[in-house]
Amino acid sequence: MKIGILTGGGDCPGLNAVIRGVVKTAVQQYKIDVVGIIDGYYGLVNNKIRGLTLEDVSGIMPRGGTILGTTNICDPFHYFAIINGKKVYGDVSDKVVENIKNNGIDVMIAIGGDGTLAIAYEFFKKGVPVVGIPKTIDNDLFATDVTFGFDTAILTATEAIDKIHTTAESHHRAMIVEVMGRNAGWIALHSGIAGGAHIILIPEIPFDYDAVIKKIYERKENGKHFSIIVVAEGAKPKGGDVVVKRIVEDGAEPRRLGGIGNRVGDEIEKMTGIETRVTTLGHIQRGGSPSPFDRILATRFGAEAVTLIAKNEYGKMVSLRTPEIVSIPLEEAIGNQRLVPLDSGYIKAARLIGISFGDK
Amino acid sequence: MKIGILTGGGDCPGLNAVIRGVVKTAVQQYKIDVVGIIDGYYGLVNNKIRGLTLEDVSGIMPRGGTILGTTNICDPFHYFAIINGKKVYGDVSDKVVENIKNNGIDVMIAIGGDGTLAIAYEFFKKGVPVVGIPKTIDNDLFATDVTFGFDTAILTATEAIDKIHTTAESHHRAMIVEVMGRNAGWIALHSGIAGGAHIILIPEIPFDYDAVIKKIYERKENGKHFSIIVVAEGAKPKGGDVVVKRIVEDGAEPRRLGGIGNRVGDEIEKMTGIETRVTTLGHIQRGGSPSPFDRILATRFGAEAVTLIAKNEYGKMVSLRTPEIVSIPLEEAIGNQRLVPLDSGYIKAARLIGISFGDK
Amino acid sequence: MKIGILTGGGDCPGLNAVIRGVVKTAVQQYKIDVVGIIDGYYGLVNNKIRGLTLEDVSGIMPRGGTILGTTNICDPFHYFAIINGKKVYGDVSDKVVENIKNNGIDVMIAIGGDGTLAIAYEFFKKGVPVVGIPKTIDNDLFATDVTFGFDTAILTATEAIDKIHTTAESHHRAMIVEVMGRNAGWIALHSGIAGGAHIILIPEIPFDYDAVIKKIYERKENGKHFSIIVVAEGAKPKGGDVVVKRIVEDGAEPRRLGGIGNRVGDEIEKMTGIETRVTTLGHIQRGGSPSPFDRILATRFGAEAVTLIAKNEYGKMVSLRTPEIVSIPLEEAIGNQRLVPLDSGYIKAARLIGISFGDK
Amino acid sequence: MKIGILTGGGDCPGLNAVIRGVVKTAVQQYKIDVVGIIDGYYGLVNNKIRGLTLEDVSGIMPRGGTILGTTNICDPFHYFAIINGKKVYGDVSDKVVENIKNNGIDVMIAIGGDGTLAIAYEFFKKGVPVVGIPKTIDNDLFATDVTFGFDTAILTATEAIDKIHTTAESHHRAMIVEVMGRNAGWIALHSGIAGGAHIILIPEIPFDYDAVIKKIYERKENGKHFSIIVVAEGAKPKGGDVVVKRIVEDGAEPRRLGGIGNRVGDEIEKMTGIETRVTTLGHIQRGGSPSPFDRILATRFGAEAVTLIAKNEYGKMVSLRTPEIVSIPLEEAIGNQRLVPLDSGYIKAARLIGISFGDK
Repeated sequence: MKIGILTGGGDCPGLNAVIRGVVKTAVQQYKIDVVGIIDGYYGLVNNKIRGLTLEDVSGIMPRGGTILGTTNICDPFHYFAIINGKKVYGDVSDKVVENIKNNGIDVMIAIGGDGTLAIAYEFFKKGVPVVGIPKTIDNDLFATDVTFGFDTAILTATEAIDKIHTTAESHHRAMIVEVMGRNAGWIALHSGIAGGAHIILIPEIPFDYDAVIKKIYERKENGKHFSIIVVAEGAKPKGGDVVVKRIVEDGAEPRRLGGIGNRVGDEIEKMTGIETRVTTLGHIQRGGSPSPFDRILATRFGAEAVTLIAKNEYGKMVSLRTPEIVSIPLEEAIGNQRLVPLDSGYIKAARLIGISFGDK
Repeated sequence: MKIGILTGGGDCPGLNAVIRGVVKTAVQQYKIDVVGIIDGYYGLVNNKIRGLTLEDVSGIMPRGGTILGTTNICDPFHYFAIINGKKVYGDVSDKVVENIKNNGIDVMIAIGGDGTLAIAYEFFKKGVPVVGIPKTIDNDLFATDVTFGFDTAILTATEAIDKIHTTAESHHRAMIVEVMGRNAGWIALHSGIAGGAHIILIPEIPFDYDAVIKKIYERKENGKHFSIIVVAEGAKPKGGDVVVKRIVEDGAEPRRLGGIGNRVGDEIEKMTGIETRVTTLGHIQRGGSPSPFDRILATRFGAEAVTLIAKNEYGKMVSLRTPEIVSIPLEEAIGNQRLVPLDSGYIKAARLIGISFGDK
Repeated sequence: MKIGILTGGGDCPGLNAVIRGVVKTAVQQYKIDVVGIIDGYYGLVNNKIRGLTLEDVSGIMPRGGTILGTTNICDPFHYFAIINGKKVYGDVSDKVVENIKNNGIDVMIAIGGDGTLAIAYEFFKKGVPVVGIPKTIDNDLFATDVTFGFDTAILTATEAIDKIHTTAESHHRAMIVEVMGRNAGWIALHSGIAGGAHIILIPEIPFDYDAVIKKIYERKENGKHFSIIVVAEGAKPKGGDVVVKRIVEDGAEPRRLGGIGNRVGDEIEKMTGIETRVTTLGHIQRGGSPSPFDRILATRFGAEAVTLIAKNEYGKMVSLRTPEIVSIPLEEAIGNQRLVPLDSGYIKAARLIGISFGDK
Repeated sequence: MKIGILTGGGDCPGLNAVIRGVVKTAVQQYKIDVVGIIDGYYGLVNNKIRGLTLEDVSGIMPRGGTILGTTNICDPFHYFAIINGKKVYGDVSDKVVENIKNNGIDVMIAIGGDGTLAIAYEFFKKGVPVVGIPKTIDNDLFATDVTFGFDTAILTATEAIDKIHTTAESHHRAMIVEVMGRNAGWIALHSGIAGGAHIILIPEIPFDYDAVIKKIYERKENGKHFSIIVVAEGAKPKGGDVVVKRIVEDGAEPRRLGGIGNRVGDEIEKMTGIETRVTTLGHIQRGGSPSPFDRILATRFGAEAVTLIAKNEYGKMVSLRTPEIVSIPLEEAIGNQRLVPLDSGYIKAARLIGISFGDK
């Protein structure tokens, strides 16, 4: 028997721990071979495959990234690429099924977010035995309590906020830290509470600049001449974001406009005259050695995925129902987002200790 | 209204975050005053009390330790100390109740482990309104999914194991790392999996030196000339530990005999000739800036404890039932230990990836 | 005798360690009192002064920031502020000298960069006994081998580059990391070598986009589909930087235009089609617990400054001439920048291992 | 041309960075091949040799340990081992010279401490072109300002002391931290100052228990009920250490007696009744990802060693004369230890801020 494994979508600490967990369990416990697909689905289309032995996964758990590589956007059902010199558009999923067969792969393990898992489910419907392993640094996958990578991202973001804290205090500034979270504010919420933020802005709670500034002034009146504001990249002011259109002299549109963090900084400075500084954490949140929590969860996901295979259970995804790892049908898992519930205990506690969400 | 708060027992990252959570919630939300008891119950007996304002708790969340101080062993119901120059033995609990009253304290919040909470419950039975907040770095409290401090201890232990990993590999050694866990092996289990240990010895699973050595030789045969062995301080070989009695030349009994880690190291070296090195992590596991997880959990515990008080619910302990903070009667909470269940998903996954628990 | 101490200019890890070193040495060794000036020269103008006891400096060494506060721009010789409701422009240095006298301060210790020290020297010429302690996170002060804060900034930047490394590799991207260094490229040079960068762009070596891209392609040909590019904020392309003028729809000029890092990212993407990502580290480089090196250097600076005072040596600055702390006249110290010499051993070694500076 | 490279002696962060620096410089700049000797001189005796390509050294800089392996004690001039089933005692250096020749190795780079470099010098005298790279975590090599690994060890030790600090304070204890340093107290001195220790005991300054206790009581009188004592493993009380002879019940002599840290803890507790706790950092000081400083220094050492080879300069060792890398004859480099000078600026500053060295 032979398992093929691929990692899809954005980088996430813990991917290597999953791969190691899969290989160790498959090879040692069940005498199943494992091969790795290079660069996600792209490698399945293009037959980029490598063996994965115990030696290959030795020592990889503490490393960020994925030894298999990944591509953010590659959907074999809607493919656009250059194969053997020819542009190929459209559906190459049959080619993928053929490649899987020709490489002697009996089962596929797909590690990825909603997109990667949805594609995996399509292949399952086409007859490929598939097991999914959920991955999202934003923690916004519906069907699992939490995914690996999130805890590490929180560590990284909190460390950064800790560093900014002392500067804010020494300089009497409003410091804005923009963290990841396009649709869900989990990272901002957790790192904001842990980092001692005074204001947290998340996509789930549209904010009001007046409320933000009220909180800053309230602190000032209590002798606190600085504020820490953690902003999820997807946070939005009530009534929608200002449309910012910038024109560079040479006519080109710059692709990297400042995000919401910069706009919040500008707005506060404009409205209050208080000096602001904005830090956009960006990609450092996706890197680094995975935290112990993430290493353990990723290892358990990997081991459990192989166990499902050993029991011939396909079309499923492993999932954390604290503290157990369970499996659920891929069908149920995909297409649903896990946003921060407004009655979340985290939000409740944050409000109790005086954190403002900019909504009142 | 006035809340008194004390921290009891061993040090644990997150205590300051709890204190901050309590003060912020009490003062800002409920206009309740808070005073801190110095050095746990000892301070209640001896009237060592300080005010706790918002300013006092500003910036303390990231710091290890407790700004209130603590004592490991001080039970007012079985007291032994010197008060005002006189040795006092026996029950000084009435004195404590009096002190509480005289200081205008209406409710006590006791943060501590099983011992501290049991004493709190005794005071509750004597009529003192009490709310408990569980604390144990070993994670062995029955009545909560997890307590703060544990995640930070795992971080510290895993970092140490990571560091030892490369040396083990470069030198072809068996490296033994002894971690905390007198009765429960949670820290060894988690940091062992996260640190890539090959053998994990915990109190819940008595081990066999032959099984330990079998695993080391098995690795050798696969070309791996080093092994990482994580040992909980309470791990025991089958049939009980060798009684080690050491005599120092001057007749005094040295108080700090090597723990089980050293004995495992000695035994392996004696039985195999393989070079071993032992590292006992000791007190660094109790220190350091709390991890984001611990800061958040501690903050929620603190905020929730005050909420209970605002609702006049006493004799209870806050507790994590993931992801909610609930409250349970102190009576139910104390006296039960949470050991690692032998069918735990963590142990199952560890075995699947080839980790030996020295039992077969 | 009484010492007054102030911290001026941008935040820098180690300021608290200096303050602690000064107070411990003054109070314990020489029985000299110390007072702290709040918010740099601003506090001297406005009589914002606090006592500094041994208790006040207890435990502050590991903390970033400065317990005294600081202001970036406040020059009493060219003052602009509102004092007692009246706008004050111009020279308030006499007022400062008077305040120093009225507060019983015999000597001033000024901790700061070139600007802060130049002002200190002006006060010295006006008769105030002054000792300077150099501070610059960029390490661009001429008169000392190195200053505290720099080592910590390198640690922070290198950790960030490490995190970005794995993502770059997994995704086959060119990752740009912009670090501090307006005039001098020390941080980029050191963190670039330490972080395994392939291209380092510093102000001292104007770069050529063609050379940058040549290096990226060279790596591609050797099978390395990713590159790490560390850019000092003051790096400039040969022939000068493109003037970027952006217009926001509502007419306001956004104050936070992307820096050189973003422009390098845009340019590479435009010229090669390779996906790029830009991370601007920003203020996290100024924060955080100082590294052991910085704590020690800062402590030695503080202790040595007091020793100078005990010997009545004024108008001087402490300085590191590895491994000794010496003192030099303030006059010699100010106004000279320490740029990276083009024949530096660091640049030589970097080129030897294949790092490109974008110049050929 | 072909370079052979070996790492000898104890583990040290930065070894991989040296190897990477050598390979990158040799292969890219000078088109010289490099092979790695496995497990130090043992591999030279036994012909354990591997190729080292650019790919082999890709990504190894941030990792602790050495990809080549090492052995602590293997001197081909006084060899004791089993070769091809036969016990071999005595001088196998001719065999090594032969192996070097047969493997087509033209020059050897030996990375190691005094022992490894002394052996390298012997081979140089036997006609093998040799370049040495100094390595010692204790920083006690005479002929270089500092070696890689030391800065990382200081980081690790200081982090541990930071963690212990808060616990000491919360519990009113004397906490003893034993760090590496058999003959030289550099690690204790630096990590002690950086960690805010109150007492530092180093081999260069024999200590007096009465002086140690005097300091602890002095702190107590000033309201500080805890003390941090950093002890180098080679520290000794005046008049010599108590001979500790322990007998285990079964008659065997335990090999791991408590070190000086434990004895200091016992003595303080016996003499004062103050609760003490001892932490022996041990091997974690040798592991971990090298600090930026160590990565850079190691890289420069590697690049410079190859440059010497390119200039046909042999029998030399690279050395840091801050900030330059120079070369000195191996003959001068070996056999001299660099102890902490009693008039060191570090000791002077430490005394100024009130640190006791237990000598008065």
